[in-house]
Amino acid sequence: MAKNITARSKNFPQWYQDVIAAGQLADHAPVKGCMVVRPDGYAIWEAMQQALDTMFKETGHVNAYFPLLIPENFITKEADHVEGFAPELAVVTQAGGKELEEKLVVRPTSETVIGHMYANWIQSYRDLPILINQWCSVMRWEKRTRLFLRTSEFLWQEGHTAHETADEAQEETLQMLEIYRKFLEETCAIPVIIGEKPEHEKFPGAITTYTLEAMMQDKKALQSGTSHNLGQNFAKAFEIQYLNRENQMDFVWTTSWGLSTRAIGGLIMTHGDDDGLIIPPRLAPTQVVIVPIFKSDEEKASVLEHADKIADQLKATLGRLKVKVDDRENMRPGDKFFTWIQKGVPLRIEVGPKDVAKQGGMIVRRDNREKQPCHIDDMVSTVQTILETMQESLYQRALNFQKENTHTVDSYDEFKSVLKDKGGFILAHWDGTNETADKIQKETKATIRVLPGDGDKSEGKCIVTGQPSKQRVVFAIAY
Amino acid sequence: MAKNITARSKNFPQWYQDVIAAGQLADHAPVKGCMVVRPDGYAIWEAMQQALDTMFKETGHVNAYFPLLIPENFITKEADHVEGFAPELAVVTQAGGKELEEKLVVRPTSETVIGHMYANWIQSYRDLPILINQWCSVMRWEKRTRLFLRTSEFLWQEGHTAHETADEAQEETLQMLEIYRKFLEETCAIPVIIGEKPEHEKFPGAITTYTLEAMMQDKKALQSGTSHNLGQNFAKAFEIQYLNRENQMDFVWTTSWGLSTRAIGGLIMTHGDDDGLIIPPRLAPTQVVIVPIFKSDEEKASVLEHADKIADQLKATLGRLKVKVDDRENMRPGDKFFTWIQKGVPLRIEVGPKDVAKQGGMIVRRDNREKQPCHIDDMVSTVQTILETMQESLYQRALNFQKENTHTVDSYDEFKSVLKDKGGFILAHWDGTNETADKIQKETKATIRVLPGDGDKSEGKCIVTGQPSKQRVVFAIAY
Repeated sequence: MAKNITARSKNFPQWYQDVIAAGQLADHAPVKGCMVVRPDGYAIWEAMQQALDTMFKETGHVNAYFPLLIPENFITKEADHVEGFAPELAVVTQAGGKELEEKLVVRPTSETVIGHMYANWIQSYRDLPILINQWCSVMRWEKRTRLFLRTSEFLWQEGHTAHETADEAQEETLQMLEIYRKFLEETCAIPVIIGEKPEHEKFPGAITTYTLEAMMQDKKALQSGTSHNLGQNFAKAFEIQYLNRENQMDFVWTTSWGLSTRAIGGLIMTHGDDDGLIIPPRLAPTQVVIVPIFKSDEEKASVLEHADKIADQLKATLGRLKVKVDDRENMRPGDKFFTWIQKGVPLRIEVGPKDVAKQGGMIVRRDNREKQPCHIDDMVSTVQTILETMQESLYQRALNFQKENTHTVDSYDEFKSVLKDKGGFILAHWDGTNETADKIQKETKATIRVLPGDGDKSEGKCIVTGQPSKQRVVFAIAY
Repeated sequence: MAKNITARSKNFPQWYQDVIAAGQLADHAPVKGCMVVRPDGYAIWEAMQQALDTMFKETGHVNAYFPLLIPENFITKEADHVEGFAPELAVVTQAGGKELEEKLVVRPTSETVIGHMYANWIQSYRDLPILINQWCSVMRWEKRTRLFLRTSEFLWQEGHTAHETADEAQEETLQMLEIYRKFLEETCAIPVIIGEKPEHEKFPGAITTYTLEAMMQDKKALQSGTSHNLGQNFAKAFEIQYLNRENQMDFVWTTSWGLSTRAIGGLIMTHGDDDGLIIPPRLAPTQVVIVPIFKSDEEKASVLEHADKIADQLKATLGRLKVKVDDRENMRPGDKFFTWIQKGVPLRIEVGPKDVAKQGGMIVRRDNREKQPCHIDDMVSTVQTILETMQESLYQRALNFQKENTHTVDSYDEFKSVLKDKGGFILAHWDGTNETADKIQKETKATIRVLPGDGDKSEGKCIVTGQPSKQRVVFAIAY
């Protein structure tokens, strides 16, 4: 059907690019590696923002805005942090027509500048906890870029909290991980495996990094969000001290957590099909599009009136912006179907002269193309039921795919052959060393994605070295 | 009362800084001239965003995101544009560890990069109009900065539209001007005088710039939003051509319009008093704070229960986030009153043991300190009525102030003496030349703020040159 979209089986990366172009989600910016998020892509980001922001606020977080430019020396204050980010920085050296005395970096993330401000704001335990989130763009200069997945500038939210105790910081880190899980699984219908990152894959400066790993339809892993327990590392680097309840000075305990427009890439590669994007109903900026079908001007009037009537009923329940009537002139209904399919709108309702006569419409699901005639009196409840069913069904389909493509292996030979023949997630024992992980990555390109927090925790022996392993970990080729 | 806030009459600029500090609205960033918007300030910006974004979407606009970095040569493509912005640019010259071949500027505004993208997206009249808005930060290197009013980085929205005809572009320019007026007057309770800017004060690259000018309590003018008709200037510079209905190639007509966090500065200086900020109810992130008052643990239990009961009723009507119970331990009620007054929360409800007995509470208005006892059964309706009254009363107070401090003069001597003795807005005839405006500015520091679109349009003679004048214009000392 979709001539402008390559089949997934033929060329998955090309399919991904085609879906983005066909859905008008994003475009390449004139500056290499940067991205324009077009209105249809940005509407998905706004829906993501709304879902996350509501959960952030329900758990006591507030938003703020910290500056884009950070003095270069800030980045060097935390040793691991500078090592991790220095190669990716974009640097402002001139401003207001002059060379700057001190170079300024465009934020790659804001732990440093926020740490600096927290040091000013926090005096005693009465000022704690601080629970702040920021929505912004960040800049990490990348060599190979792909829209949404890896661009030199991307949109995200970054949460930064400060606490009295190590326990509280750990609790916060896990709370935000759970909010991300809920968001990805329940709103985006993207099943994830959650748990710790291995030591060598941690965020630069973190004590522990928790991750949520999703499986794309090409069986590669996508890191879809991270939550970091930063311990007292940044507190010590930026001297964030407070007077504790025992009247002594102590360093605070901090966390940070982020989720970016990368999740839109995950959405595309989890649910899309050869005809384009499929957006889960709970996230869809437009949930229902009504397409009027008519041949004569006479038919046109009655069909449009009927379409508007259905739209008004649906809008009253679903919300004004969730329902669209596509009354564009000079465009055939088939072409309209085509564009809405490519944009991934969950439901289409076709309304023609016969539907006017029967006081109904034909509901068509985007995911499985099922058609269902419906009387106008049942339209609201039927649409709601189908939307809920579709949301659940997209999640189940993705979960089944993830399970079918997760393999347990007990030797390095088996590991290599499964990775080569089947791909997907491989559960294997690992001795916990960076050396072994490095060897596996060099030889197979697979990396350790996550130490799963749930599931089988039995001990074993490393598939490479035979040394003791505390639990199986997830290996995969990753984005 | 407020020891940490200087009186307005004593030192208005210091009062402004003190109000921001006391209300914890913003802070200076480590990079000179940049700003941190703290949670209580950002919550006001979120309320502003919500009000504006709703109106933008109701009029068919959609949001998108364009890149932060713009190739330096883009800025030079529109002659007036480069002249206006070149001195203020921050420039990225290094990225990813290397010197860049082409310098990149941090966007000071996005006409150029958006123009470049529109040229790719627009082919025919079927692609028009394009009605896009973006929420982001922009960078204009400033020498003298003041929080919210003038900082090197600030948050704003910038709308960019493209149209088939000059008339449509003009209609859009005026529509957005009217949306800003509605927002400033009806949501922020800030009365404005609207109309065109004189030729020499136009946005660099615009055909016509419309402005909304507000009067602060020190009688200085604050430009609070602008809407520009860009004609075909940017279309020609970026070759945004389309096939028109006559099957010929033509340039599109574009507009742009923006409103920034500067409006928070306007809010502070329009409504604040010597005790701090006053936020109009429609904009207030928190509309009502309930302060429990008790002496014993026994009283505490019943008072807190009663406070929660009132809060629950109010939340059900006003919204969950609009009502707070201040149940902080170890803080006296008087100190709580003090902090909420400084933060400008419209209503406080005091609840003590006597109020539990009477099943009521004492409502206190932030603006005029009026107290009013209220039974719990009447609480919701009374609070709603007071909030509406207060919204209207803040607007009327500011409008009266503006009117009282607007003076009509007919000679340059009178102009100078009124400006010196009274200040405020001065309505005077002007010959329409840049030279005269320059002379007046050099001699008096007053600038032409706006050519009012409403009101007296009678012709006259310039107060300086005696040459013909088409209408009186508004002069003022401005921020």
